Amino acid sequence: LVPRLRPFTSTIFAEMTALAARTGAVNLGQGFPDTDGPSGMLAAAKDALYGGANQYPPGPGRPELRAAIAKHRARYGTDYDPDTEILVTAGATEAVSASLLALTEPGDEVIVIEPYYDSYAAAVAMAGATRKVVSLVQREGRFALDADAVRSAVTPRTRAVLVNSPHNPTGTVFTRDELSALAAVCVEHDLIAITDEVYEHLVFDDNEHVPLSTMPGMGSRTVSISSAGKTFNCTGWKIGWVCSTPELVAAVKAAKQFMTFVSGGPLQPAVAYALDNELDWVGELRRSLEKKRDRLANGLAEAGFSVWPSAGTYFVCADVRPLGFDDAEELAWRLPERVGVAAVPVKVFTDHPAEWNHVLRFAFCKRDNVLDEAISRLHKLA
Amino acid sequence: LVPRLRPFTSTIFAEMTALAARTGAVNLGQGFPDTDGPSGMLAAAKDALYGGANQYPPGPGRPELRAAIAKHRARYGTDYDPDTEILVTAGATEAVSASLLALTEPGDEVIVIEPYYDSYAAAVAMAGATRKVVSLVQREGRFALDADAVRSAVTPRTRAVLVNSPHNPTGTVFTRDELSALAAVCVEHDLIAITDEVYEHLVFDDNEHVPLSTMPGMGSRTVSISSAGKTFNCTGWKIGWVCSTPELVAAVKAAKQFMTFVSGGPLQPAVAYALDNELDWVGELRRSLEKKRDRLANGLAEAGFSVWPSAGTYFVCADVRPLGFDDAEELAWRLPERVGVAAVPVKVFTDHPAEWNHVLRFAFCKRDNVLDEAISRLHKLA
Ligand SMILES: CSCCC(=O)C(=O)O
Ligand SMILES: CSCCC(=O)C(=O)O
Repeated sequence: LVPRLRPFTSTIFAEMTALAARTGAVNLGQGFPDTDGPSGMLAAAKDALYGGANQYPPGPGRPELRAAIAKHRARYGTDYDPDTEILVTAGATEAVSASLLALTEPGDEVIVIEPYYDSYAAAVAMAGATRKVVSLVQREGRFALDADAVRSAVTPRTRAVLVNSPHNPTGTVFTRDELSALAAVCVEHDLIAITDEVYEHLVFDDNEHVPLSTMPGMGSRTVSISSAGKTFNCTGWKIGWVCSTPELVAAVKAAKQFMTFVSGGPLQPAVAYALDNELDWVGELRRSLEKKRDRLANGLAEAGFSVWPSAGTYFVCADVRPLGFDDAEELAWRLPERVGVAAVPVKVFTDHPAEWNHVLRFAFCKRDNVLDEAISRLHKLA
Repeated sequence: LVPRLRPFTSTIFAEMTALAARTGAVNLGQGFPDTDGPSGMLAAAKDALYGGANQYPPGPGRPELRAAIAKHRARYGTDYDPDTEILVTAGATEAVSASLLALTEPGDEVIVIEPYYDSYAAAVAMAGATRKVVSLVQREGRFALDADAVRSAVTPRTRAVLVNSPHNPTGTVFTRDELSALAAVCVEHDLIAITDEVYEHLVFDDNEHVPLSTMPGMGSRTVSISSAGKTFNCTGWKIGWVCSTPELVAAVKAAKQFMTFVSGGPLQPAVAYALDNELDWVGELRRSLEKKRDRLANGLAEAGFSVWPSAGTYFVCADVRPLGFDDAEELAWRLPERVGVAAVPVKVFTDHPAEWNHVLRFAFCKRDNVLDEAISRLHKLA
């Protein structure tokens, strides 16, 4: 293994899910739902399987899917040309890594907001670029984006900033003001923004997902990424996409076409169908996840954790100190055996483990009885 | 777009298929079949869609698929442990690019056999490594692997050799002697071999596919790659795999898990089913393709081309000079408009365009009436 990838031989999700399986623990570690997506989408996939969609789709993705993505994205007020401004990828993971491989190279710096989804650091390393992390800050009880800290991290070698909102692992959703301040930094320093918006529909209460691309000056410099997995409960399909300018999409495609060429042939028309027809189902999903968030957050609080508010995503974060623990990572590795629940320590997503030492992430995208079982098990910790 | 990827903004397959679509040409350019795979495999995919296989498969691939791959590969006499020696990828494309990203870095040289499938050069560039090409030679009327030329291309910086047999685009199948000589070079110079064996089942007459990994000293240094696309007529599913040592598989996984994480969730059990149950179907496919090869090769000869023998793959190569053309690339770009057939010029897969100037590749993995129509159109060239 080449040196640049040596820090990235495993992922916490694979390890924690394996540990959960081995110990029979309730897996609130890896974020995936335990119920299927809309039945119309599954039927569309079946029709595609039997309808001749089993050979290579076009490199940029099937036309009906690109059209559906454009239509779906237009709800934010921006039009994208399905032929030149949209690219279908193997999930958001490929979209992020292809963007970094296409746009950054050794010597370039990429600003990554911490805590960061683990593939970001690995993808920056794969491109040979250097990550500069900027931590979220705690403000009014929530995790907030500090655009001034981003500004301070910019150097003449900064090429891009990688932004994830709704944010995994904290569940924070960046506000319009935060994004507007970040946009100003990007414009000021001529940075490309790569935005991971896979939880765009999973936003609760009166929070709102605001795409960074809609901020002044950002349309021409943002690679906007999303995917079907979290919106339609099909995380294993790995159908994602990029929306950007023709120039940036062409660049990402140059990398993407030699990473996988294409993927998920017969699943592409099904995602097109879902984007076109199943947004009511997504509304139900959102409302159901909002209740699950409350269920898990309340349960964790009752079990003795101190819980941060989650404004979106599948996740809620909890402070383990009130229960007498210091090191959430140590706890996470023992939790499955000790009480039969798996969770993910947030410090593994940071370059500053000491500061994030006490934070544990739990996924609430599970059936209510699964959440209840986990909560009752966690009560044994006190 | 970063400089290292600037030569790779498009692929000939996407361009030629788009041109074929625009002109209504018979597309013998891109290699994909126009009939579906075994019905049992499609039924297994449908069952998986409705049977809860829509969330993330495990990072290395679903266990039943890894077990099926191990069993399938065992026919060559080598056992692989499904848990540590097999990795499921988004087709062979991801397997190749992940292998190169994991095992090579700037300063490393990778020997690539020319003509080469286009993603190889791009993937070497993506890893920041340097490609050294070694051309196939003509021997006894076929394209042969010249292991001595490979030996001469080795330098102290050579890290890996990328080998594709059955060979796209020429249709040649490397002989046991050729592979044995190549193995000796790899052992002598401590090289890793990355082998693309996606056409392993599509070998005709009394030719035989011999995995390089079965040669003395090669088991510990070969990353063997194959995929379901060509074996089961499902090129759009992009389910591929790597078989190698635990150490090499772990390295490839380090890159792969951050390129796509996983892919094709519900298609994985279907490929497992096909590997376990549909090899008779594959035998039929092989015999049918052998006849199609004859049909197209004879047709091309009658139309005035000089045709090289094809021992495997989907492809046959033809010399355009007997028809009065010099430049097969120029011809390829005009052919769709002029006679309504698309083919691919082989020189775009080489670093020595002058030497491969006259060679055109045609795909015969099409229905007989499609081949006949293409042949009848090509007669208009004379
Ligand atoms: C790539 S597996 C992880 C799933 C996920 O998005 C998460 O748990 O954060
Ligand atoms: C990646 S599209 C090309 C399909 C193929 O393998 C070929 O035509 O050579």
